[in-house]
Amino acid sequence: MESWPPGGSGPAEAGRRLRGLHGADLAASASLLSGAGAEAGCSAPAVAAVLPAGGSGERMGVPTPKQFCPILERPLISYTLQALERVSWIKDIVVAVTGENMEAMKYIIQRYQHKGISLVESGVTRHRSIFNGLKALAEDQPNCRLSKPEVVIIHDAVRPFVEEDVLFKVVTAAKEHGAAGAIRPLVSTVISPSVDGCLDHSLERVRHRASEMPQAFLFDVIYEAYQQCSDYDLEFGTECLHLALKYCHIKAKLIEGSPDLWKVTYKRDLYAAESIIKERISQQICVVMDTKEDEEHVGHRLKEMLKNELNHVKVTSGRDLQQIILEQCYNFVCVNVMTSDFEETQKLLNMLEESNLSILYPVVVISVQFLDYESVPFGQKMGNLMQIREFAKEVKKTNILLYGLLVYYPQDEQKLQESLRQGATIIAALIKERNSGLIGQLLVA
Amino acid sequence: MESWPPGGSGPAEAGRRLRGLHGADLAASASLLSGAGAEAGCSAPAVAAVLPAGGSGERMGVPTPKQFCPILERPLISYTLQALERVSWIKDIVVAVTGENMEAMKYIIQRYQHKGISLVESGVTRHRSIFNGLKALAEDQPNCRLSKPEVVIIHDAVRPFVEEDVLFKVVTAAKEHGAAGAIRPLVSTVISPSVDGCLDHSLERVRHRASEMPQAFLFDVIYEAYQQCSDYDLEFGTECLHLALKYCHIKAKLIEGSPDLWKVTYKRDLYAAESIIKERISQQICVVMDTKEDEEHVGHRLKEMLKNELNHVKVTSGRDLQQIILEQCYNFVCVNVMTSDFEETQKLLNMLEESNLSILYPVVVISVQFLDYESVPFGQKMGNLMQIREFAKEVKKTNILLYGLLVYYPQDEQKLQESLRQGATIIAALIKERNSGLIGQLLVA
Repeated sequence: MESWPPGGSGPAEAGRRLRGLHGADLAASASLLSGAGAEAGCSAPAVAAVLPAGGSGERMGVPTPKQFCPILERPLISYTLQALERVSWIKDIVVAVTGENMEAMKYIIQRYQHKGISLVESGVTRHRSIFNGLKALAEDQPNCRLSKPEVVIIHDAVRPFVEEDVLFKVVTAAKEHGAAGAIRPLVSTVISPSVDGCLDHSLERVRHRASEMPQAFLFDVIYEAYQQCSDYDLEFGTECLHLALKYCHIKAKLIEGSPDLWKVTYKRDLYAAESIIKERISQQICVVMDTKEDEEHVGHRLKEMLKNELNHVKVTSGRDLQQIILEQCYNFVCVNVMTSDFEETQKLLNMLEESNLSILYPVVVISVQFLDYESVPFGQKMGNLMQIREFAKEVKKTNILLYGLLVYYPQDEQKLQESLRQGATIIAALIKERNSGLIGQLLVA
Repeated sequence: MESWPPGGSGPAEAGRRLRGLHGADLAASASLLSGAGAEAGCSAPAVAAVLPAGGSGERMGVPTPKQFCPILERPLISYTLQALERVSWIKDIVVAVTGENMEAMKYIIQRYQHKGISLVESGVTRHRSIFNGLKALAEDQPNCRLSKPEVVIIHDAVRPFVEEDVLFKVVTAAKEHGAAGAIRPLVSTVISPSVDGCLDHSLERVRHRASEMPQAFLFDVIYEAYQQCSDYDLEFGTECLHLALKYCHIKAKLIEGSPDLWKVTYKRDLYAAESIIKERISQQICVVMDTKEDEEHVGHRLKEMLKNELNHVKVTSGRDLQQIILEQCYNFVCVNVMTSDFEETQKLLNMLEESNLSILYPVVVISVQFLDYESVPFGQKMGNLMQIREFAKEVKKTNILLYGLLVYYPQDEQKLQESLRQGATIIAALIKERNSGLIGQLLVA
């Protein structure tokens, strides 16, 4: 059974959704999913996506085309591919890149393990690039693994936050209307200048919308439109919906999209994208402890403190680490009370390295030691603890950011409370920033 | 003599521009400034600005109206006020806020020492708020320090990055044409939906522009337009240029603005604004040393390393600290070689506290100690150095972020080089992030 309509994301997504459902619940959930499909009156169409990625990014004011600009050291386009490939009902993704960037793109696909991607050469304009992508899907060539889809999604390489929900809506609407596209309210009033650079007239904002991506089309409709359209259209046009209207008389259905659909256009958008991604991967912290039982344990108290200090962040115990890794938790606090070495942390690091979790996002690991450094001479355990710098350098190679944290553990209850609070603040700071310049540091709370 | 046209910023700006000019140079510069005014054929008009700030920020998806959302702990609107008040030829700034936010606004003005600001109550719509601002400027009331300007700028509270240059251009054009406004190319194609939610037609992107802020008007023109305009306009209109056209037949001159003019609308825009502000205040690092002479000195070598590692960042010596503070440098590295206490750092902190530099932006101070911790037992100097946590807590109250950095100082040249490089990386990380959760930490390079 195909996971159409939405709900059919990657295995981790599915795992998350179904967690806690058993027996009857699970059956009910499955029937709901297929029921929704029946209600909408649609069977699963064959869907492919075309991503024009030949742009030069001149508006960004940086030499690298914006789709290749790194966010947390990974190129922007890889985030967009990830957003599309986790949707199980999109069969093929065709990316149009310049000959110059072909090798770089192949490297990105291999490095970040993207699946189901085909590359074609881009044209000199956006429309020509899309046309090249469509041609690759149209031609049932013997050596080509691509086949003609019923519906094709057109999306931008620089809109990494597209959700399955809106993809589903445009595809469903395209199946019914022939074409569909996401829209957003206008942020600024649109005006029309006269030839002398003065205001000719302004448009009523409520009567207009910004046309965004994704858009979807019956393949035969949009392919026909591109085959018919003029060189002027291919050269100067910006709007696929317009081509479907002009050449196939298809009035596209317009779908209200979320603010997430915005296009990374300027340098500030890269900053915004980085902050959003950092925020998204900081929503869950897993606390791993070297003891299991004692609820009065300082590790438990640190965990409770984290829950209080970090609103909106889910703090879990590392009872079943494999499951937590599968759920894509990118933040681990490893509490060592019984030992002053890194045995527990080392075990966790090995598990993370084996899991490949850090291929897509940097994983933060904070190794916490409780220490009464006012009674124990400070230098004593230090040699041992300074090893963390070497560990950190080593695991950085696999995109794991390791930091150390000493939490002052005095007899005085009030002071301990204060230390735990400061420990939580430092943990939050490290997770929020994911700064690789500070790996291997031994911070003190 | 008034500093019209541009060039007439606040004292620090002026100081920066004129630095290094003496005698004849200075005279030539002054004549250039006034010459430009004569060339454009304009004398200095009386200019005021109106800032509607009554919005609720519903698009942001947060309960605080966006103009009051904090960036580096300071409300967004304060950055916008700062951008306007540093322009010496803007005489008055009228801000329209809701009665509910009046006290908060007064506190912001006092806390961040804004000058020349008058408050009026906002209306229920943007146009009504602007109208209220204009009324306050029109009425020459006996107890009111405001007087009617020749030209009025209308700007948004949520566009903090407006430059003097574009303000000058719209004011000059308004003086000539009666009205003027900044425009930007459209990022998305604009479409017009039909009543059934389908595409009616799409607009040619090159023939349209986004109307942005600032705009400027001859006061009599825009005041007349607001007095004439209908309730419908006041309730549903979004465009001041449109009112000038409709009611006074003034075709506004359109001025191409820079990408910086964008409006903080969504949560992602707050992230972007924070990153931009952080980047701007990280452009200069001042290195303060406790010895003056020796060019082989490790402090000098750290300085050279910073220059190499941080492209685009100006690294200066702290020879004349008062001057550097006046030039608004927000980052200080204080190198202690001769002592293992914080005497030099303490001196710098005192100077910074007296200067009020940190009222507007958090100032980063990194106190560096060189230490051969492989030969000296680690715990020895530690008690002394741990004092930094107390200092840091204290100066945080005045918005100074203090961190400690131990740089390993071995006999081995290659190892020293490596330590210095890592020191530079850590310094860059601390300055880039300005994370208050990590203050008082003693980092190790």
